[in-house]
Amino acid sequence: MQRRDFLKKGATAGAGAVAATSIIGAPAIAQERIEIAMVSTWPRDFPGLGTGAQRFAERVNAMTDGRIVIEYFAAGERVGAFDSFDEVASGNAQIYHGAEYYWKGKHPGFAYFTSVPFGLTANEINGWVRFGGGQELWDELAADFGLKGLMCGNTGVQMGGWFNKEINSADDFKGLKMRMPGLGGDVIAKLGASPVSLPGGQIYENLVSGAIDATEWVGPWNDEIMKFYEAAKYYYYPGMHEPGAMLAIGMNNDWWQGLSKSDQLIIEAAASMENEVMMSEYMAKNGAALTRLINDQGVELRQFNDDVYDAFGRASDEVYAEVVEHSDLARRIHESFLQARTDIGGWTQLSDQAYVQQRNRVLGM
Amino acid sequence: MQRRDFLKKGATAGAGAVAATSIIGAPAIAQERIEIAMVSTWPRDFPGLGTGAQRFAERVNAMTDGRIVIEYFAAGERVGAFDSFDEVASGNAQIYHGAEYYWKGKHPGFAYFTSVPFGLTANEINGWVRFGGGQELWDELAADFGLKGLMCGNTGVQMGGWFNKEINSADDFKGLKMRMPGLGGDVIAKLGASPVSLPGGQIYENLVSGAIDATEWVGPWNDEIMKFYEAAKYYYYPGMHEPGAMLAIGMNNDWWQGLSKSDQLIIEAAASMENEVMMSEYMAKNGAALTRLINDQGVELRQFNDDVYDAFGRASDEVYAEVVEHSDLARRIHESFLQARTDIGGWTQLSDQAYVQQRNRVLGM
Repeated sequence: MQRRDFLKKGATAGAGAVAATSIIGAPAIAQERIEIAMVSTWPRDFPGLGTGAQRFAERVNAMTDGRIVIEYFAAGERVGAFDSFDEVASGNAQIYHGAEYYWKGKHPGFAYFTSVPFGLTANEINGWVRFGGGQELWDELAADFGLKGLMCGNTGVQMGGWFNKEINSADDFKGLKMRMPGLGGDVIAKLGASPVSLPGGQIYENLVSGAIDATEWVGPWNDEIMKFYEAAKYYYYPGMHEPGAMLAIGMNNDWWQGLSKSDQLIIEAAASMENEVMMSEYMAKNGAALTRLINDQGVELRQFNDDVYDAFGRASDEVYAEVVEHSDLARRIHESFLQARTDIGGWTQLSDQAYVQQRNRVLGM
Repeated sequence: MQRRDFLKKGATAGAGAVAATSIIGAPAIAQERIEIAMVSTWPRDFPGLGTGAQRFAERVNAMTDGRIVIEYFAAGERVGAFDSFDEVASGNAQIYHGAEYYWKGKHPGFAYFTSVPFGLTANEINGWVRFGGGQELWDELAADFGLKGLMCGNTGVQMGGWFNKEINSADDFKGLKMRMPGLGGDVIAKLGASPVSLPGGQIYENLVSGAIDATEWVGPWNDEIMKFYEAAKYYYYPGMHEPGAMLAIGMNNDWWQGLSKSDQLIIEAAASMENEVMMSEYMAKNGAALTRLINDQGVELRQFNDDVYDAFGRASDEVYAEVVEHSDLARRIHESFLQARTDIGGWTQLSDQAYVQQRNRVLGM
């Protein structure tokens, strides 16, 4: 689907969203018919992020033979992308799908439940959240806002971004206006850039108009659809800012607590399935899209050099020093993350990293 | 849990399995009560592989509030580990959990749906099966035996194995009796080893008695429980033979086809959830277990050198040349796998591989 198509669809559907009905917020018991509203931070039908959120909703509907009906609203159809948090925290809707780092203004701890600079890959963050104490800290954080979060998708390692000049040293970030949400934005700010956070549906026009000089979004499959190559030709990897961007559903916690155990488990399974399926889709589709970008659109693929990465590392240390000063909970989340990065990241080094290095060497890949 | 405990438990429960009741094989419709038998290739409560299979069964039971009841039998409790395939193909049971490469004697194509030498990592195989044509080929293969398979767990990259001597060249495999199932076993046979396939519950005694000289099993978390270090001190990485060992449920296809769409989706979601959860657990627990093995048990960690890996590569080419001669379907599965390895493996190189290399360099990991 072309970028313009989904933007237009989103706008059209937004006008009709006023007529949405059948939203109940009351606790339900097993076998009771449940009709709820789900909002999201993604344009309708946006591949991966949007279609994954929609698959989650459709899966719950289908698993229960329509007993649980989730009415899905893409960004702008009921509320704006970045109003999703408040819409669910207030109980106006029951579920959102989005990236938790969009809420770092509410609490910097949320950034850790999407991805942080020099953070965890998809499999590493899954390990941390499920078996390394991550979910418990997330529950504590979200409950403070009346929410409950569950993992529901991952993009894998993101690309470093689109630039209209080469990035040969950290100085090349000075004065750069770049779309980068989360703590990654804070990192490039330390290097002298001006980061902005924009929802997906607003990036292209800002890049083309020159309101921003550079942007990151996701990776080749998603970025190709966005046509960023019309305004920026240099495409850098690997991104330091989102090495395994986890997506999430956030649920109104009172509503969630009122569900039966079996209904909670149906939602957990549907979310976990999307956590795996979305990652699988990005794995399957990014490679071919990157080839098309290079061959068909003349995109120049570049790798950040060691000097730039060293500067990212120093700037990240400064950002983290500020995060842990925010609150006791921010410090505990950061320390739990650090422990996971050491334990799980060490295993990654001996397993995936060592294997893929040898495989690709032997095969000449 | 200690190795001896689960072996004993398995034996005890096996004696009682004769009394198993309430097995129906007839097609069911939505909302009908469904009671089925599930067998597996794992000892009861074996961490990861066994507990993951059990979690799948319990999850289906709980998601349906007991409407679908899966009675779970570990290896030896109803049939032996390697009789699971026939038990389900015949309709005596409805589901098994195991590793598809155990059935390579039925058809070599099954090996690709666990893991093959120089094969795909966990995220890569998920991408291939879901979005690269893998599931369609698997369906065709399994249907020939009256089965339907779904992904249901992954161990991630496995260790290369336990040896009582150093492996400095391919010649060190000559005359070695080693437990290694799947096509990995065929690869080391090309190097002069004698591979054997043993279910998990029988490896330890064969290693201690000297019936085998070496073994691979899974990775640090599982191998520690098996106490292989009592008989072999050299622990090699990375394994070329199972870089992302996918586990699976195999279902009697007539039974599966008779289920309602919503019940099929409940089973699919429960299996997909375990596909993600099991991988997460291995990621979270392998690192600490490896540290214990080295520090507490005096295990010597070693990395296969380039010469050994080059020899693995040449031997793998010979094995694959034989596999594709088996049948048209074997050739099509192999070619689909090769395409996925090129497309998805190329993306891995630019994403996880490039990122983790920089992250761990900057952090000094």
